[in-house]
Amino acid sequence: MARLPVTWEAVEAAAQCIAPYVRQTPVMTSRSVDDAARAEVFFKCENLQRTGSFKFRGACNAVAQLSEAERARGVLTHSSGNHAQALARAAQLHRVVAHVVMPEDAPEVKRSAARDFGARVIDCAPTHDGRVETATRVEEETGARFISAHDDPHVIAGQGTAACELVAEVGPLDLVLAPVGGGGLLSGTLIAMRHLLPTAEVIGCEPAAADDAYRGLRAGERVTEFVPRTIADGLRTPLGERTFDILHSLAADLVLVSEAEIVAAMRFVWERMKILIEPSSAVAVAPLLSGSIDCAGKRVGILLSGGNVDLGAALRLFG
Amino acid sequence: MARLPVTWEAVEAAAQCIAPYVRQTPVMTSRSVDDAARAEVFFKCENLQRTGSFKFRGACNAVAQLSEAERARGVLTHSSGNHAQALARAAQLHRVVAHVVMPEDAPEVKRSAARDFGARVIDCAPTHDGRVETATRVEEETGARFISAHDDPHVIAGQGTAACELVAEVGPLDLVLAPVGGGGLLSGTLIAMRHLLPTAEVIGCEPAAADDAYRGLRAGERVTEFVPRTIADGLRTPLGERTFDILHSLAADLVLVSEAEIVAAMRFVWERMKILIEPSSAVAVAPLLSGSIDCAGKRVGILLSGGNVDLGAALRLFG
Repeated sequence: MARLPVTWEAVEAAAQCIAPYVRQTPVMTSRSVDDAARAEVFFKCENLQRTGSFKFRGACNAVAQLSEAERARGVLTHSSGNHAQALARAAQLHRVVAHVVMPEDAPEVKRSAARDFGARVIDCAPTHDGRVETATRVEEETGARFISAHDDPHVIAGQGTAACELVAEVGPLDLVLAPVGGGGLLSGTLIAMRHLLPTAEVIGCEPAAADDAYRGLRAGERVTEFVPRTIADGLRTPLGERTFDILHSLAADLVLVSEAEIVAAMRFVWERMKILIEPSSAVAVAPLLSGSIDCAGKRVGILLSGGNVDLGAALRLFG
Repeated sequence: MARLPVTWEAVEAAAQCIAPYVRQTPVMTSRSVDDAARAEVFFKCENLQRTGSFKFRGACNAVAQLSEAERARGVLTHSSGNHAQALARAAQLHRVVAHVVMPEDAPEVKRSAARDFGARVIDCAPTHDGRVETATRVEEETGARFISAHDDPHVIAGQGTAACELVAEVGPLDLVLAPVGGGGLLSGTLIAMRHLLPTAEVIGCEPAAADDAYRGLRAGERVTEFVPRTIADGLRTPLGERTFDILHSLAADLVLVSEAEIVAAMRFVWERMKILIEPSSAVAVAPLLSGSIDCAGKRVGILLSGGNVDLGAALRLFG
């Protein structure tokens, strides 16, 4: 097996590096969930992480790795989602400038969230080309270091730290579930789990309506052309080159989840556990409740990836 | 001062007694809230308590105090709210039968929640007289012990344990805020705080649209005739005789909160803290955010009383 772009040692180093900044999020349990799944389920609540998602871990690690010269020039990304806020906040805490390229049709609340963390927000045309052109221009103008939301080795290493904390707190697990979008969280989780609990299963959960990872890993070739139609807005991104390599090399196991299952799981967690999770997080809860993964008698860890959800949109989902 | 119906020793004993059954709920903090209130705020998350509210503490303590003969005859209450579920679950855990009298127009979800915990649910006419008549009949038929939702000394002592845990975890506080409906939580909290931190302020927060406690304590006489119109459904009950006496004797301080402030506070907590709280809990957060209590520079504890909220109704409030 070729050497992976991210090692266990990198995850371990990331955990040290981000410890002063991240919140050690609580692990929650729920009698209702345990009964429904006939399992012992531990939820790692990254919805309660700073900036509302696990993305803060990776962003924080990436910013911490900058050289003095790089720090002076700042960081750059394009995102209208959780990574934008995470990088903005991580940069702010490290006293580094963050440039965030956002589609001009992004909701004002996303723009102001990044600005509130001190980021410079730059509008771009709401197309792939528009984003790339604008990001390239800003990179040339500022010399800022581009930090991908999921395909940066330091970001991937940072995401792996959530699973480390989970295992440190609850001990052995038979199975860990994580959502898959760009693949950063699943990659980091796999790398951590293969070291910490090599016999534990790790299953990536992907919306059937954005199944590029599922199809790509079956075919052994990354799918880049696809039109995601899922409500799980955090999982509309295709796998990156690095995350595809990692998931492929580590023989990641994936399961698909329907839109109706996502809504039902999200509602179940809100109502029974009294915490807000975003649709992307519900994707990793759904297989447990729908029975598409048999968890009976197992100790299961679930990475609740984030809680940034528009309440109006949630109301329409729950109709 | 006359001897109160509930002592610090009773609260201390309750804490021991219910420890094997209650969840030691987490204490959460939020940068957003601290910034908004210019204070250091600690949220005791009883919305994450078993059965979704602090009521489980009091119910559990009341059931634990039964004699063998009383256990054999069971417990009884009338409630369509959090106390119904709490008593049903506490009785189930103690292998005691629970009879719950509920208005026939109560939502089916409330009825099935109590039944799921093994309670026998008895319908009554949706009036005060209907409730009393039916409860009296069931009491006569079964010999079950009636457990008031807020005016039972063991219930009040149990409710005081939430503040004890909060202080044990975070240390000194300058101010504690709790919602007021029937007054059980505020009474228990006052008794605990006067012993643990006698110089800390304790302020009860009441909807202006259900201000019986505010008016009654000012007048020195309990208000029993009033029509509450608040969305905080847990706070529509008037003070009981015992809770009125306790709050009056301990010179409880109260603040009123408007309906708009309740909705705004609830939304703030959902969106920023990613946890679900019911409108009654938001009543104790509102004065902090609206500025009606000056918290600047203080260490503030807030008892988030519960998270049992109908999602459809809540999301419509945020409309």
